[in-house]
Amino acid sequence: MAQQHHDLTDSAAGPAAPPVTGEALAGYLRGQATDFLRALRLHRETGGGPSGSGGGTADAVDAARALRRSARRISASLHTFRPLLDPGWSEEIRPELAWLSGTLALEHACESRLDRLLLALHRLSGATTVPTQTLGTNTGTGTNTGTGAGAAVSATAATAAPPTTTTTTTQRTAPRPTPDRGNLTVGAAKAGALLDRQLTLARTRAHSTALQALGSSRFHAVADKVAVLASEVPLAPHAATTDPRPLAVAAEERLTDAVAALPLVTAGHPYNAEALIHGLSPDPAPHPQDAPWHQVRLLLRLHRYALEVLHGDDAPPGVRLLSAGQALDRHRDASEAAAAAAHAARTPRIAPATAYALGVLHADQRHEVEAARYAFQRSWQKQTIGTGTGTS
Amino acid sequence: MAQQHHDLTDSAAGPAAPPVTGEALAGYLRGQATDFLRALRLHRETGGGPSGSGGGTADAVDAARALRRSARRISASLHTFRPLLDPGWSEEIRPELAWLSGTLALEHACESRLDRLLLALHRLSGATTVPTQTLGTNTGTGTNTGTGAGAAVSATAATAAPPTTTTTTTQRTAPRPTPDRGNLTVGAAKAGALLDRQLTLARTRAHSTALQALGSSRFHAVADKVAVLASEVPLAPHAATTDPRPLAVAAEERLTDAVAALPLVTAGHPYNAEALIHGLSPDPAPHPQDAPWHQVRLLLRLHRYALEVLHGDDAPPGVRLLSAGQALDRHRDASEAAAAAAHAARTPRIAPATAYALGVLHADQRHEVEAARYAFQRSWQKQTIGTGTGTS
Repeated sequence: MAQQHHDLTDSAAGPAAPPVTGEALAGYLRGQATDFLRALRLHRETGGGPSGSGGGTADAVDAARALRRSARRISASLHTFRPLLDPGWSEEIRPELAWLSGTLALEHACESRLDRLLLALHRLSGATTVPTQTLGTNTGTGTNTGTGAGAAVSATAATAAPPTTTTTTTQRTAPRPTPDRGNLTVGAAKAGALLDRQLTLARTRAHSTALQALGSSRFHAVADKVAVLASEVPLAPHAATTDPRPLAVAAEERLTDAVAALPLVTAGHPYNAEALIHGLSPDPAPHPQDAPWHQVRLLLRLHRYALEVLHGDDAPPGVRLLSAGQALDRHRDASEAAAAAAHAARTPRIAPATAYALGVLHADQRHEVEAARYAFQRSWQKQTIGTGTGTS
Repeated sequence: MAQQHHDLTDSAAGPAAPPVTGEALAGYLRGQATDFLRALRLHRETGGGPSGSGGGTADAVDAARALRRSARRISASLHTFRPLLDPGWSEEIRPELAWLSGTLALEHACESRLDRLLLALHRLSGATTVPTQTLGTNTGTGTNTGTGAGAAVSATAATAAPPTTTTTTTQRTAPRPTPDRGNLTVGAAKAGALLDRQLTLARTRAHSTALQALGSSRFHAVADKVAVLASEVPLAPHAATTDPRPLAVAAEERLTDAVAALPLVTAGHPYNAEALIHGLSPDPAPHPQDAPWHQVRLLLRLHRYALEVLHGDDAPPGVRLLSAGQALDRHRDASEAAAAAAHAARTPRIAPATAYALGVLHADQRHEVEAARYAFQRSWQKQTIGTGTGTS
C-alpha cells in the first residue's frame, strides 16, 4: 500500500517521467481493446464454447478467459476514470461489457465450484488420493480452489503462515478428474453425485447461454464498439490535459473506506465462528454478512486496474495486494460453494446420509469463508503497517 | 512452567522451608480422603442421585462433583508417587477409584454434552436468544460449553485473545433451559429433539448406574479404604526420608514429552482444517487424531495434582497451566459432542433436514476441536517462552 500510494501521487517527481494525462488512460484502453479482439479471434478459431460439454479445448478456455479479462478491465477503467471519457459513450458500453463478462464467467464458475466441492468431499472423507483438479485454469480469475488451509498446514512456521502460501495450490495443472469415489462413504459419494448432477446441469445451461450470447446481435454491437476503441478512444474534451491520478486515488479511497467498514477485528481473531453463525438459518438467501466482503473484492479489483492504467505492466501490484485479492476470491468461491451445498440439501427425497454429508460440506465451506476473511485481514494488516493510513 | 519448574526443584532453598518428604504426600492424601468422606456424607444427606431426572438438588450435584474431585486426586497421586506407597495397597485401590469417578462422571458428561449441542444449534441458527444453560455446574470438571470462540469475538484486540477469555462463559449460572425452538429451522429443531431424546436416555441410564454403584458392596469397599486413608496412609518403609519431588518432575517430563509429540505446528496455524479431515470418514470410531490430545489432558492433570501434593493450596497452578487445561477440556468435550451428532445422524428413518442439521453441527464441533487445539498451542507456547524447555 505504501508503495502504491507513493506511486499514485509522486510518480511525476521522477527524473524523466512525462506528465501523466488522459493519454495514459487512452493507451491502456486501446491495449485492452486490442487484447479483447485478439481473444475474440482466437475464440472463434478454437471452435466456440469455452470448455463446453467436452467440446472445448484448452485454447478455447484460454480465449474465453482472455475475453473476460479484457472486458473487466475496460469496464472498470470506464468506471474509475469516467470524467475523462465521453459520458454518453461510456455509459452505453459499460453495462454491455458487464453483461458480457458476467455471462462468460458463469460457466467457469459452475465448473470450479464443482471442483471445489468434490475436492472438499474427498478431503473430508480422509481420502488419501485427492482427485486432480483443473486448478491451472483458475489463475485468470484468481479462483483459489478450496485447500488453502490444507496447503498451509505444510508450512513449518509455528506462527500463522502468510496467506501467500495458498497461492501454491493454484500452480498445479492437471486434466479434469476421473471420478474416484471408491473410498468415500455412501453419503459423501451420493452428495458428490448430486452436486455433480446439479452443477453440471447449471454449467451446461451457462455454456448454452454463453454460446447464444456470443452469436447475438447484442454481442456484435459490443465487439464493434470495442473495435472502434482499439483505434480511437472517445476521451472527454479536457482529458488530454487532465491528470487521471486523483481519480485513481479516489478509487483507492473507496476501497480503504469499504475495508474500514469490515469487521476486521473479529476476522483477525482465529476461530471466531462468525461465518457459520447462520449456518442453519431458515433463510435460504445468501449470507448478508458476506456482501460487504464481496463489495471490497470488487473495489480491490478496481483499485488494481487503476494502478494498471497509471503504471502499465511495469508496476505489477505488490504481493500483498495480490494476496488480499486472492483471499477475497477464495471468500467468494467458498461462500458460493457453501450455498450450492445448502441448495443441494433441499433437493426433495434425498437420503439422510446424503443430507448429512451436505451439511458437513456446507459447514466446511463456511469455515473456508471464515479462513479467507482471516487471511484477508492478515494481508491487509501487513499492507498498512507503518503507513499510518489507519485502514485496519 | 518456568515458575512451576522452579517450585518443583528449588523450594527447599526457601528460608524456612522444611525438607520435603513422603509426609507431604501423606498429608495431601489424608486431606483428600477427608474431603471424599465429607462429600459422601453430604451426598447421602441431599438424597442420592446427582441431578437425576429432576430429583437432584444443586447440593447433590455439588456433592457428586466433590466426590469425583477427591477420587481423581487420590487416584492420580497414587499413580505419580507410587514408589512412596505400599505397592499392594495402592495397586488395589487405584482401579477402584478410577471406576468410581468414571461412573459418577458419565451422567454429568451426558448432560453437559446435550447443553453444548443445543447451544450450538441455536448459535448456528442465528437465534438471537440463546437458551440459558446449566453452565454453572461445569466448572468442576473444567467442562467449557462450546461458545469459547464466540465469546472471544468480543475481545477488542485484533490479535488472538488469550484463551483465558473462554473461562468467562462458565461463569453464568442458570436453571435448566426451557426448550425454545421457535426460531429454529425444522431441521435444527428436529435435530435438537433427537439429541435431547438420545442424550437424556443416556443420562438416565448413567444416573441409574451411578445410583447402583453408590449402593454396591464394591463402592462400600472403596469408601472403607478411603476412610482408613483419612487417618493412616500406607507409605512405603523408606518414604519418610524420600524426596517426592523427583517423582513430580518425572510426571512433568511425561507431560512435556507427550506435548512435544503433538502436532503443535499445525495446531498453531489457524484454520488448518485438520480436525474435520475425517469428518465424513466411513469409520464411525472416535477420531484417532484426538487420542494424543486426550492423553496430554490426563498428563496435564497428573502434573497439576502433583503440584498440589508438593505445594498444597498455597501455590495454585498458574493461569497458563489452567488455560492449557481448559483448552484440552474443551477439546475433549467438542470431540465427544461431534461424535454424538454423528451418532445421532445414523439413527434410522430421520428426515433429510434433520440429517443436514446434524452434519452442520458435527462439522461445527469438529471446528471447535480445532479451535481448542489452537488455544492449547497458544497457552503452551506462552508457558515455555523463555524457559528453553523446547516443548513447543
